[in-house]
Amino acid sequence: MGVKLGILGLGTVGTGTVQLLQDLVGRHPLLQEIEIYRVGVRSLSKPRAVELPEGIITTDLEAIVNDPTVDIVVEVMGGLEPARSLILKALSHGKHVVTANKAAIARFGAEIFTAANQAGVYVMLEAAVGGGIPVIQPLKQSLSVNQINAVTGIVNGTTNYILTRMQTEGSNFDDVLADAQKLGYAEADPTADVDGLDAADKIAILASLGFGGRIHLEDVYCEGIRQVSKTDIAYAEKLGFAIKLLAIAKRTFSSPSSPLSVRVHPTLVPKAHPLASINGVYNAILVEGEPIGQVMFFGPGAGAGATASAVSADILNLVATLKTSTTNPNPLLACRHQDYCEIAPIAELVTRFYARFLTKDRPGVIGKLGTCFGNFGVSLESIVQTGFQEELAEIVVVTYDVQEGNFRQALAEIRNLEAIDSIPSILRVL
Amino acid sequence: MGVKLGILGLGTVGTGTVQLLQDLVGRHPLLQEIEIYRVGVRSLSKPRAVELPEGIITTDLEAIVNDPTVDIVVEVMGGLEPARSLILKALSHGKHVVTANKAAIARFGAEIFTAANQAGVYVMLEAAVGGGIPVIQPLKQSLSVNQINAVTGIVNGTTNYILTRMQTEGSNFDDVLADAQKLGYAEADPTADVDGLDAADKIAILASLGFGGRIHLEDVYCEGIRQVSKTDIAYAEKLGFAIKLLAIAKRTFSSPSSPLSVRVHPTLVPKAHPLASINGVYNAILVEGEPIGQVMFFGPGAGAGATASAVSADILNLVATLKTSTTNPNPLLACRHQDYCEIAPIAELVTRFYARFLTKDRPGVIGKLGTCFGNFGVSLESIVQTGFQEELAEIVVVTYDVQEGNFRQALAEIRNLEAIDSIPSILRVL
Repeated sequence: MGVKLGILGLGTVGTGTVQLLQDLVGRHPLLQEIEIYRVGVRSLSKPRAVELPEGIITTDLEAIVNDPTVDIVVEVMGGLEPARSLILKALSHGKHVVTANKAAIARFGAEIFTAANQAGVYVMLEAAVGGGIPVIQPLKQSLSVNQINAVTGIVNGTTNYILTRMQTEGSNFDDVLADAQKLGYAEADPTADVDGLDAADKIAILASLGFGGRIHLEDVYCEGIRQVSKTDIAYAEKLGFAIKLLAIAKRTFSSPSSPLSVRVHPTLVPKAHPLASINGVYNAILVEGEPIGQVMFFGPGAGAGATASAVSADILNLVATLKTSTTNPNPLLACRHQDYCEIAPIAELVTRFYARFLTKDRPGVIGKLGTCFGNFGVSLESIVQTGFQEELAEIVVVTYDVQEGNFRQALAEIRNLEAIDSIPSILRVL
Repeated sequence: MGVKLGILGLGTVGTGTVQLLQDLVGRHPLLQEIEIYRVGVRSLSKPRAVELPEGIITTDLEAIVNDPTVDIVVEVMGGLEPARSLILKALSHGKHVVTANKAAIARFGAEIFTAANQAGVYVMLEAAVGGGIPVIQPLKQSLSVNQINAVTGIVNGTTNYILTRMQTEGSNFDDVLADAQKLGYAEADPTADVDGLDAADKIAILASLGFGGRIHLEDVYCEGIRQVSKTDIAYAEKLGFAIKLLAIAKRTFSSPSSPLSVRVHPTLVPKAHPLASINGVYNAILVEGEPIGQVMFFGPGAGAGATASAVSADILNLVATLKTSTTNPNPLLACRHQDYCEIAPIAELVTRFYARFLTKDRPGVIGKLGTCFGNFGVSLESIVQTGFQEELAEIVVVTYDVQEGNFRQALAEIRNLEAIDSIPSILRVL
């Protein structure tokens, strides 16, 4: 009496998952109870890297989610539709769902989890964030005994690869992006990665699990890495920082009832911080809670094998549940929250800032800058005055903690100073 | 109808756990179903950092494990006895057990898990390794879909603190140990930590979970850090390595049926390796598997809060199981294996080595060293000849991969060379 899987999609992740489930030596023995019953694809004629018995592969995806003999639907096709509709249909038929689809979960999570709770089934999504890294289940289980204060991650491998190469080679963003596209580390249309949208999907999911409430994706503040220049990376290096695209969900003050700040932006990370040395396509997620302190999860953020591991882990969890559970929903698998988290607007964020100014009149301008900052309560931690670009002096400042709204007001005033040519970069500092 | 806990011990970990369970704001709501029913202590008169209602605290620990109303026994007293007997008695009465006792589990695991399986209950031990880091449950669940090839950890905070300070300050082992004892980072009797015994207990547990077999603790090869000198740390630095006390469990060749190598020893770790930058009292566990690749878990390896988090996570898991499961044992909580792992003797280990020689006759000796190594098939990757100590020349070599037995034979021959004064250090290289 095997547990019957209906797999939707046989691309990279689907193929990796089938390969894992076809070679069970040295893996958890419970996987032996799984039967790959149907695999839904778009084209039957496409050559495949895995062999499946006659009759398993079909182009009729609707038939899979409607088939009463299917126990678990594994959605690894990606995209918003028809993925969303197929997931909802599977749930309405009482099937558990495993998905790697961060985009669909970040947008339709409320609808999907409501449907799952109504049907008394589970939606498992370990593969949606951090590739193979086990972080979703630890957040639902082990870490949930803590009051979570912050979840901070490098959750997009493409941008981390680009920033790492810009840092080690001193190269420009455009050159590294073009090379990354050639090497297959970045897509032909890199928007979702380099503009931070993929990271925003993922931090919405992590925040929801960590803080026990739903997140409106449009509340996630998002800045990508296109405006990060090699000049800023060099200054950051000199000041003791690495620039990383961080996805951050954090309580705005240390009380479990305080609003959250949820955001994605390039960030100056102190070299000694555990996230500063996460390089290349790797991902890492740092969780801070009371009383645990800081724990970090590190690993490959993408790739067929890593993602297949996460998908298979979810399947294993569901098989164990099917084998042992009563009809009571397991509160460590179910998504327990229904309310939305209160998200503070970015203007209320309190953070340090890094800003780079090009000025015409170097000796006089420092005092004027200082006055403008002072008018809005911005204190400066360090000022670097080296560097010239096209006869303009370059001034770099790092502030102490300041409310973003105040900092922006000071900048508006500074922009009007006659001595200021431009403000090429404004970055937040961890 | 709460789940009734009987807690054995109210030291650091017990107190931390009670504190967590007494302040449930912002934590998983399932924790509200827990009742701290009895707490067993040695002395009723000792002042306590937590307040408990009249009648909860008792010195009769036997009564707790025999009490039919107790659902879960939480053993946080430490030590081998009476911890072992109390755990066994609790299991025989059908109670689930949560323990932080790595020493008892590493020694009596076979007896304890057999008793648990017979009684159809679970022994949970997240707190036994890596403090608060969720690593035991991920190994049992998510990662178990992989063929595990290696588990490598910095699992002892005291020795990592000492080695980190020796590296950053250029200090001697003895001086740093004395200071660590003064600061409370090392115990008055530091044997279990600095001789690697604590790390050996922990790698035996991790190996057992990762590779699905029991481990005889006496099969774990164990070397501590007493012989690591500041000279070696400086040479390692120059060669691009940090010296770490690693606990390693690894397949000796890449087949799921190959014997394991399970060992604890100071190790030269390449600077770019993720474990090289784990400093101070932090712990980290790196798991390598197929198809996941490398994942690493990082966090506080000890402390009341971190350990209480792990203990409470185990309790939460059991409460979820008590609420939802049938009588079928959950294969993701139970300890599934009964056979012992085959462990290869250390002489069969294939590794790189670092060795430091003091020689009398510098120009002639390099050739002789090379000849001896060559006789036993040892190839040298690098040779450093700088440094003098009391009119003796110092030669440091790093080998390519070699079987330990062959390397030791070469050393025996080298020791007999007239030009060799002594071989102060022999260390393995990751």
